[in-house]
Amino acid sequence: MNSREDVYKRSLKLHKQYKGKISVESKMSVETMEDLSLVYTPGVAEPCREIERNPSSIFEVTSKGNMVAVVTDGTAVLGLGDIGPDAALPVMEGKAVLFKRFAGIDAFPICIDSKDPDEIVDIAAKIASSFGGINLEDISAPRCFEIERKLQERLDIPVFHDDQHGTAVIALAGLYNALKIVEKKLEDVKIVMTGAGAAGIAIAFFLLSAGARNVILCDRSGSIYEGRKEHMNPAKEEIAKKTNPGKEKGALEDVIKGADVFLGLSGPGLLTQDMVRSMNKDPIIFAMANPTPEIFPDEAKEAGAAVVATGRSDFPNQINNCLGFPGIFRGALDVRARAINEEMKLAATKALAELVSDEKLSPEYIIPSALDPRVVPAVAKAVAEAACKSGVARLPLE
Amino acid sequence: MNSREDVYKRSLKLHKQYKGKISVESKMSVETMEDLSLVYTPGVAEPCREIERNPSSIFEVTSKGNMVAVVTDGTAVLGLGDIGPDAALPVMEGKAVLFKRFAGIDAFPICIDSKDPDEIVDIAAKIASSFGGINLEDISAPRCFEIERKLQERLDIPVFHDDQHGTAVIALAGLYNALKIVEKKLEDVKIVMTGAGAAGIAIAFFLLSAGARNVILCDRSGSIYEGRKEHMNPAKEEIAKKTNPGKEKGALEDVIKGADVFLGLSGPGLLTQDMVRSMNKDPIIFAMANPTPEIFPDEAKEAGAAVVATGRSDFPNQINNCLGFPGIFRGALDVRARAINEEMKLAATKALAELVSDEKLSPEYIIPSALDPRVVPAVAKAVAEAACKSGVARLPLE
Repeated sequence: MNSREDVYKRSLKLHKQYKGKISVESKMSVETMEDLSLVYTPGVAEPCREIERNPSSIFEVTSKGNMVAVVTDGTAVLGLGDIGPDAALPVMEGKAVLFKRFAGIDAFPICIDSKDPDEIVDIAAKIASSFGGINLEDISAPRCFEIERKLQERLDIPVFHDDQHGTAVIALAGLYNALKIVEKKLEDVKIVMTGAGAAGIAIAFFLLSAGARNVILCDRSGSIYEGRKEHMNPAKEEIAKKTNPGKEKGALEDVIKGADVFLGLSGPGLLTQDMVRSMNKDPIIFAMANPTPEIFPDEAKEAGAAVVATGRSDFPNQINNCLGFPGIFRGALDVRARAINEEMKLAATKALAELVSDEKLSPEYIIPSALDPRVVPAVAKAVAEAACKSGVARLPLE
Repeated sequence: MNSREDVYKRSLKLHKQYKGKISVESKMSVETMEDLSLVYTPGVAEPCREIERNPSSIFEVTSKGNMVAVVTDGTAVLGLGDIGPDAALPVMEGKAVLFKRFAGIDAFPICIDSKDPDEIVDIAAKIASSFGGINLEDISAPRCFEIERKLQERLDIPVFHDDQHGTAVIALAGLYNALKIVEKKLEDVKIVMTGAGAAGIAIAFFLLSAGARNVILCDRSGSIYEGRKEHMNPAKEEIAKKTNPGKEKGALEDVIKGADVFLGLSGPGLLTQDMVRSMNKDPIIFAMANPTPEIFPDEAKEAGAAVVATGRSDFPNQINNCLGFPGIFRGALDVRARAINEEMKLAATKALAELVSDEKLSPEYIIPSALDPRVVPAVAKAVAEAACKSGVARLPLE
């Protein structure tokens, strides 16, 4: 782990050197009293009056239309857990940097010092004037589900919990391509997942949206099924009704038997080689726990895995969130979407999967690199089109 | 008013052309996977842990130390009144532009959709992680007094209502120099003010802090005195106890008699030439109502005024807020001050007044221009020194 320790040291040094990662800049120059009178008083009264007359003009005369709030309560930050709003700030600033770098979106960190879902919703809703979208980040499950739903109900700008849907979009894109390789269909495969947090629950729902019929979600108490009593919450209750049609009970090692796909969103080393060997022919393994996957790619392959993906950049097939949220928000903002709905997420998934051509598709290349310049434009276009078709866009496609 | 109409039109056009005035930029470049691993995961975990270990390091590893929130509820925006948080956004973005232009400070607009002072305080306090200071803006009186006081009690970063204290600092700096010209002393003069809103109340308190002994504040009901019953509020009650020592009662035209100084923060045309003629010898007139002053400079001079200042850039002696807040916040942030106290404001006033040398001092030049490049460094230095001396600084002077 020497190189990882080194990454930490160098990152801290870089953060100290730059004193944080974001700045707020002026788009207009102010050199003369004349400039001042246009940018500020008295001239600025006119864009204010314009918004009073025509509320939607706020998108035309302010920076709102390209501005996203990166909202957290600091309860589930990276693998660090509940470190609070102050300590979460470096991650939120980092997310803002990525929004800018990948999609030209202005993003600003809002770290809320509250753990009460209703209060978080209320605060985010009451400061939303500045923002054309809300990216929820690193909020612990199951609170994140309620917060996202209630906040979207309050606001007519997209509210998107990236840890849920971003991960779901990218994982499913990778899975589409992996299934092509092993020549299986999403509707037919048995998918076993570990981790019933934000990402796990969201991916399970998204798999069902996309047509999967046999998904089994496991948490620390084993498989989740309708009627299970221990360690449930409203999100698990809901997913229990829609997944695990065979009501398979038991630990991961029991339900993994005969599965075609394993999706890990849990912790290091949870998947053993024996479990992989117990799966159906040509198993697909997405071991996305970070930094240490549920099983390392070489071990998985040795045990017979046909395709392996992880969350890490030092192995092939990285399920990297940078593949999702920049293009998704870019597309949503471009057509001034009121929300990011299922159609838009599925369009993003398809666009992402299609960037890997049939000629280049291989077990080592099922998903583009996060730095592939084709990703954001392709995802943004697909998302904007889907927003228009599904009726949540306020602007037509350019 | 053709040229003013024209300013409005051109301002609106400019706002539409740029789609608002601010952007969020990355201070670090992200070109490689290596960069990504330092700016975001896994490297970013280390600055997070650093803040957990040592909370004050948030100033070292994030953008907080140079970031100011421009907070409003949209209740008293320019001369437009209660136009709400959305319509207030262009002004708040404009303020952010000025923070950057004049003091290199990153500032971000937070428009709060609430009129309840306690809720506004609570929301601002709960999203303060990102900010090293809070600039309250365009919040109506008397709510603004309570909001500022309570928010400063909650936070250990400076909370500063610019409409109050910025205006007070600059007006007093101008008054110091005007008094030099007419060879009178602040302690001896009779000062009559119109307008008991945010700026009026703040200036009255500040004049007392600076040593003035005979200040009379007037509102629409006439002079404010201890024991007055009609149209009072807690702020007026408090100021009534400390001002108007002679308990002078009546309308402006009554109490202005024999006054040395008139400070107008009210509305167009309230001060007549006859009133100016009824004042003491060499009267000083600051007619700061915007855009139309309480009396125009030529009329005031015709009636005998020795020195006249306004809020407008097309007359000499502009009391322009850009002379205050940029340097005040720059100085406060530079030494990581916990608050902006009376000592710091007085230091800013003195520094600003001293920028006008005795040789150049004249009735047409009592205060520097807002674009004078000496202003921000001089004010910042004085404020930082005063913060250190008065014990609210967390860092020593560089």
